[in-house]
Amino acid sequence: MKSSAGSLDPQTRAEVLVQAIPYIQDFAGKTIVIKYGGGAMVNTSLMQSVMSDLLLLQLMGMRLVLVHGGGPFINRALEAIGHQSSWQDGLRVTDATTMQVAQEVLAGGVNKTLVRAVGAAGGQALGICGLDGCLLQAQKHRGPVDLGYVGDIESVNCRILHDGLDAGYMMVVASIAGSPAGDVYNVNADHAAAAIAAGCGAQKLILMTDVLGVLKDRSDPASLLSVLSQKDVPALIDAGIIQGGMIPKINCCLDALAGGVQQAHILDGTLPHAILLELLSDDGIGTMVI
Amino acid sequence: MKSSAGSLDPQTRAEVLVQAIPYIQDFAGKTIVIKYGGGAMVNTSLMQSVMSDLLLLQLMGMRLVLVHGGGPFINRALEAIGHQSSWQDGLRVTDATTMQVAQEVLAGGVNKTLVRAVGAAGGQALGICGLDGCLLQAQKHRGPVDLGYVGDIESVNCRILHDGLDAGYMMVVASIAGSPAGDVYNVNADHAAAAIAAGCGAQKLILMTDVLGVLKDRSDPASLLSVLSQKDVPALIDAGIIQGGMIPKINCCLDALAGGVQQAHILDGTLPHAILLELLSDDGIGTMVI
Amino acid sequence: MKSSAGSLDPQTRAEVLVQAIPYIQDFAGKTIVIKYGGGAMVNTSLMQSVMSDLLLLQLMGMRLVLVHGGGPFINRALEAIGHQSSWQDGLRVTDATTMQVAQEVLAGGVNKTLVRAVGAAGGQALGICGLDGCLLQAQKHRGPVDLGYVGDIESVNCRILHDGLDAGYMMVVASIAGSPAGDVYNVNADHAAAAIAAGCGAQKLILMTDVLGVLKDRSDPASLLSVLSQKDVPALIDAGIIQGGMIPKINCCLDALAGGVQQAHILDGTLPHAILLELLSDDGIGTMVI
Amino acid sequence: MKSSAGSLDPQTRAEVLVQAIPYIQDFAGKTIVIKYGGGAMVNTSLMQSVMSDLLLLQLMGMRLVLVHGGGPFINRALEAIGHQSSWQDGLRVTDATTMQVAQEVLAGGVNKTLVRAVGAAGGQALGICGLDGCLLQAQKHRGPVDLGYVGDIESVNCRILHDGLDAGYMMVVASIAGSPAGDVYNVNADHAAAAIAAGCGAQKLILMTDVLGVLKDRSDPASLLSVLSQKDVPALIDAGIIQGGMIPKINCCLDALAGGVQQAHILDGTLPHAILLELLSDDGIGTMVI
Amino acid sequence: MKSSAGSLDPQTRAEVLVQAIPYIQDFAGKTIVIKYGGGAMVNTSLMQSVMSDLLLLQLMGMRLVLVHGGGPFINRALEAIGHQSSWQDGLRVTDATTMQVAQEVLAGGVNKTLVRAVGAAGGQALGICGLDGCLLQAQKHRGPVDLGYVGDIESVNCRILHDGLDAGYMMVVASIAGSPAGDVYNVNADHAAAAIAAGCGAQKLILMTDVLGVLKDRSDPASLLSVLSQKDVPALIDAGIIQGGMIPKINCCLDALAGGVQQAHILDGTLPHAILLELLSDDGIGTMVI
Amino acid sequence: MKSSAGSLDPQTRAEVLVQAIPYIQDFAGKTIVIKYGGGAMVNTSLMQSVMSDLLLLQLMGMRLVLVHGGGPFINRALEAIGHQSSWQDGLRVTDATTMQVAQEVLAGGVNKTLVRAVGAAGGQALGICGLDGCLLQAQKHRGPVDLGYVGDIESVNCRILHDGLDAGYMMVVASIAGSPAGDVYNVNADHAAAAIAAGCGAQKLILMTDVLGVLKDRSDPASLLSVLSQKDVPALIDAGIIQGGMIPKINCCLDALAGGVQQAHILDGTLPHAILLELLSDDGIGTMVI
Repeated sequence: MKSSAGSLDPQTRAEVLVQAIPYIQDFAGKTIVIKYGGGAMVNTSLMQSVMSDLLLLQLMGMRLVLVHGGGPFINRALEAIGHQSSWQDGLRVTDATTMQVAQEVLAGGVNKTLVRAVGAAGGQALGICGLDGCLLQAQKHRGPVDLGYVGDIESVNCRILHDGLDAGYMMVVASIAGSPAGDVYNVNADHAAAAIAAGCGAQKLILMTDVLGVLKDRSDPASLLSVLSQKDVPALIDAGIIQGGMIPKINCCLDALAGGVQQAHILDGTLPHAILLELLSDDGIGTMVI
Repeated sequence: MKSSAGSLDPQTRAEVLVQAIPYIQDFAGKTIVIKYGGGAMVNTSLMQSVMSDLLLLQLMGMRLVLVHGGGPFINRALEAIGHQSSWQDGLRVTDATTMQVAQEVLAGGVNKTLVRAVGAAGGQALGICGLDGCLLQAQKHRGPVDLGYVGDIESVNCRILHDGLDAGYMMVVASIAGSPAGDVYNVNADHAAAAIAAGCGAQKLILMTDVLGVLKDRSDPASLLSVLSQKDVPALIDAGIIQGGMIPKINCCLDALAGGVQQAHILDGTLPHAILLELLSDDGIGTMVI
Repeated sequence: MKSSAGSLDPQTRAEVLVQAIPYIQDFAGKTIVIKYGGGAMVNTSLMQSVMSDLLLLQLMGMRLVLVHGGGPFINRALEAIGHQSSWQDGLRVTDATTMQVAQEVLAGGVNKTLVRAVGAAGGQALGICGLDGCLLQAQKHRGPVDLGYVGDIESVNCRILHDGLDAGYMMVVASIAGSPAGDVYNVNADHAAAAIAAGCGAQKLILMTDVLGVLKDRSDPASLLSVLSQKDVPALIDAGIIQGGMIPKINCCLDALAGGVQQAHILDGTLPHAILLELLSDDGIGTMVI
Repeated sequence: MKSSAGSLDPQTRAEVLVQAIPYIQDFAGKTIVIKYGGGAMVNTSLMQSVMSDLLLLQLMGMRLVLVHGGGPFINRALEAIGHQSSWQDGLRVTDATTMQVAQEVLAGGVNKTLVRAVGAAGGQALGICGLDGCLLQAQKHRGPVDLGYVGDIESVNCRILHDGLDAGYMMVVASIAGSPAGDVYNVNADHAAAAIAAGCGAQKLILMTDVLGVLKDRSDPASLLSVLSQKDVPALIDAGIIQGGMIPKINCCLDALAGGVQQAHILDGTLPHAILLELLSDDGIGTMVI
Repeated sequence: MKSSAGSLDPQTRAEVLVQAIPYIQDFAGKTIVIKYGGGAMVNTSLMQSVMSDLLLLQLMGMRLVLVHGGGPFINRALEAIGHQSSWQDGLRVTDATTMQVAQEVLAGGVNKTLVRAVGAAGGQALGICGLDGCLLQAQKHRGPVDLGYVGDIESVNCRILHDGLDAGYMMVVASIAGSPAGDVYNVNADHAAAAIAAGCGAQKLILMTDVLGVLKDRSDPASLLSVLSQKDVPALIDAGIIQGGMIPKINCCLDALAGGVQQAHILDGTLPHAILLELLSDDGIGTMVI
Repeated sequence: MKSSAGSLDPQTRAEVLVQAIPYIQDFAGKTIVIKYGGGAMVNTSLMQSVMSDLLLLQLMGMRLVLVHGGGPFINRALEAIGHQSSWQDGLRVTDATTMQVAQEVLAGGVNKTLVRAVGAAGGQALGICGLDGCLLQAQKHRGPVDLGYVGDIESVNCRILHDGLDAGYMMVVASIAGSPAGDVYNVNADHAAAAIAAGCGAQKLILMTDVLGVLKDRSDPASLLSVLSQKDVPALIDAGIIQGGMIPKINCCLDALAGGVQQAHILDGTLPHAILLELLSDDGIGTMVI
């Protein structure tokens, strides 16, 4: 992949840089919250590439908050200790052992691996979870069956994010939350990203997924909706165009917009330089909900 | 235990508070680095009590950095996955699996449990490891046999600690370090605490252990040396009074003093309110090296 | 008295300190205005004890403004020069000589004695009167007879208090005011404290008196009303429970509450550690008006 | 006096203002310590005029510290209570009663009268004494006979002056000092001014006296030495030109210069606008020691 | 002229200075925008005198913005290259050559001459035009005939003025503006001054002209209206008292007042020290519109 | 030219951006002084392109000072008024008329045209000359013949540059200087750039010229010396490799290095994106003197 850029003549390279000016000007000083996950997370070289992209955006003046979960890593760790998970309606029943493993894997494993990758790219990250500075408060998820330590976010206290961003760090947040009673809960990382974006006055929320975005015809990548107005969402759901796993993603976007975020993006994080392409070009490569 | 204070008349309680004034004045605004470990770490109620004590010190104006390892927790996690550790000269041979487990247990498990306990006491902590903000850089430990990912601290970049302390957080640091080559190393928490204390201009280093301090006669607690001048250390080692596991602890103290720290304390962290008693009374309860 | 606290074992002392945490957290950073007077003022050792208590509160992060008069000291000074005072309805007729004596005794005598006592306790105070920084402006008291230089407070300019508190001083204020015409007036210290508390956005006003607070049955100290809602005051006055010298004290409290102060306390300043007991315990020892 | 300026045509008035530009530029932002005393202090209209002059200098950007004693006022107050003073070598023996009177008269009487006069001129002053913020520490004067509470300045802590000047106040300081033992001492105001000037990095010390300055021929005002180099002082003392009460004044100047002050002035404070004339003209009207 | 002030005795000079206190207090910290032009501009010694006056005001704490055109200098430069100007309704038809000449003469000639004169008086000025920091945006003047590069001010971005004033510079602004399309326009300096005064929250707008102000009887200087309420303007225009070139001047004043400026002055800039006399005396010498 | 970059696929574009990271990190926060001149100045589209390049560097965090002369524009303006220039040893004899024209053309013409071009690229520039904020002080050039208002730089006062850079402006400086006597002088722009680079602690000085840099063989562009150590310069001059107009350029570089600048570059400003290519690639396109 590098060869194509590597063989460019210097003039062309300079022109590419200059053409980024208007995008840089638009986003300098703005806060952007990125839900990092999916295939981009498990592929190490892709992860390193994403961190370089983010470092570039930070050097251009953006304030970045990276929120992550890490289901596959939790699965692997549970398997290693021979602990069986049960599931209810797509949600993992989280007993105390599972919660302990999840906390360690997310806040100590994935989180620090991302911090290290930012460092390897030449930047400085600060990795925290929702317990640090009392960032995320959750309460036990309410539903027909008891899911254990699965939580719903109740409140967000973004002071620690502002402190870290002001001091120049890229903030990396594991989706673990505390509760007033002193418990620890596993919270959905998409929800955490949306709540944080709304709570800290972000300009943008970006959800990295494994699909291109909203497609009018799911078999045709060319049918991608680049821009989607939130008022058109109900009709698209009714028409079955937005369906399945895309519905909760879209709902996260709508929550963020309702909380004051100006644009929410869904894009395929496995495409090389997906976030750069979305932010530094007119067309973008995913779906932007406004 | 609480009953004895609970039954005091209010006047006596007020007098106790007023008598703390000169100690508060001495330490307000000063940075104190505490190596947290030993028995005080594995006993949950003791841990919560220590965090309350530290919160009190923070409310009185001290800047606190808590450095921790967590050997017993790593052992337990390795056992759970059936991974065998081998040892060399008292140091664990740390292969990639062990390192991954250590990172998760320290930075995601112990660290966040401490952060949560500070929150439960009413304070706000920020839990990091040596990878965050490039705080600790290590290189592979040099020795007769290859110990794997065991590192020696090469440099300390305390900016992230100053940022966090300035913003009002109690800083909690897991003893994990990065390397220029991008590797992760397990580093000794006592060494990490001493290096951090020297690097960030701390007034004091406090090593919480499971022994009272330096005893002239190890069978007699009353023979505790409350104050020990660093120049007397060689003679005490020669005389066999400082011996065994106490030698590396004392060496950490000497390193910190050589790096500009003004006092280094060794005390028994399992004694209730050990740190308060050491800092807010004339006699203290451990050994202070000056 | 000191012996009771002095004989406590260290553990108990530490527990007492830790139990103060929630109170410290409640009041850190808040401004508290204390009217200092009565018996606590004329007893030198009690005065020194009060200043130590206040210094402790300041070290715990409170911003303290101490407002004082000093009737007994003025009386003594007038006697020394053989100047006769006449009285009208409980107010001293203040001629030019009396005013000069009052100014010197309050702003130069009592004020600096309090400043010195704070210094002796290890703190730093800044003693001013209402003329400094144009803090208090008064106009001549209007009433049936001419009382001379007795003034009613017209306006408060708290800039000098904020400047001093921001710089870390305990502020000590003598109840002397200026007027637009350039005259000096003696103003009631309770009124001055209430006006200053309202003017500088204080959390609390505390009036130190020689009585316990509001008693349902004046012959029974156990009938003390710990908390009193301002809406219940008229009925208590009608019932004769609040009467005599307590009425103007309560009115000062109501004025402060009307000006935005959140709680106003009346307590017996001659009880050892009265302010600490009121602020750092659940029950308090006086009457809190809310 | 006002009539002469009052009858000037506007153009001439404007020219006078413009001609002050170079002097304003020289002193803007500089700290100037003025010992206020002598005849200028006991004449009320002269006092008001001096405060107006000082306010003008402050508006032009100078940072002003006014240090004062008040011997005549202390004498009057001692007489009023019928307390006899004894003297030794020109120094008043200061017993406890005298000290109490001096403190009240200086810190509560003279000090607040000056503060009020600054207010009447339209400015804002902050009046303190050496006890406030622990500004002046003294020890008992050592000499052949015991003079009681007469002190020599040991140390100066100018933080409170910088705080007040930074906040925009004209600082007025009564020459009362504390001691480590908690006593209060009367200190010489000339010495206090010199010590403060040296301690707070002042550009100038100005001693207001009742004589014109150093005269070569004491019977001839035209023989005034406008500028005097400190190295010429010994010869002038030997020659009897500097003699009597001028010697301690000159010594104060030399002390200030030794402490880093750049110029020290002795001038006749009873001349109208003496300080303005000294600072805003080339010739000045007194003697400048450099 | 200097002789009259030069011969004054020092006391009188000091009194003149002291009498300026209330005016200095009124305007310290306030922003004042001055349209500089007319006869005061073409007379070099008068120009130098005005800059000294302005420097004095700046030293007294005022924040000064000087806006200038320079018609006579443009005329002279156009003549030198033999370029003919045509006029329409009193406005110069500004072709590309004329615009280039105007830009060079105003922003490079007059502007820097004024900057240099401030420097010669001992101050520091920062000379800019409406292109710098995008201060002034204009659009092509709309009218019956095409006037070329004559623009009407559309918007003002005062950030560069605040930046410069905060850093302590006297700001000098040439009346040249940019346009969104990237063109340069000549704008009327009176309009520019009024727009800037409104845009940067100025206290005063001062228009320097060659006439005394508004005269009730144009043949009688004594009929000058010192103060004029904006509500009386229409009647004065109807009565022919405000007429001719005074009408646009008055309209500029009304525009500024409508934009929040508190007073607008019209005065004769050729009178020596005109601005000082207007600002530092009760009567002033021109007409103040309120 | 744009077509080559325009046709790139998005991935390649993203890679180009990411590859700039290490260069951005090297120069973020550093001050870079650029002498702008030669062919890049007279070609309008090239000028606009250079300003876009500079804006990009500024968005990436560099602090930019652009210093310019403008000989060709002065020539054209002198011709337009029919004023004859005479020359001595390659220097223009500058009489008063020429100086006036030069000031207007440089500070009002070229300077504002550059400011406008930065604005057209989307940035904000602040255009000044050496008179503003007393930036450049010169004295009359000393030589065998009198050259009139040709000056040599005596001192640089960079406060105005720091103020402007801190506030976020790109600084554009016309090479005009003042003198203590109040005269205006034309100074060589290369010298001005070198003096400013040394005076304001710049990391780099870049001289834009019309030649590639130092060529070993002037007929062979491939013989360009990319890096040149200052210690090798004398030998290269002796060998005739550095000769003619290159000698004063190199001397400027040496002056800057002697003044603490870390690298000085000579490059061909007529090459598209010359500065970007020099700063954001390893090889660069000109000669760097170190």
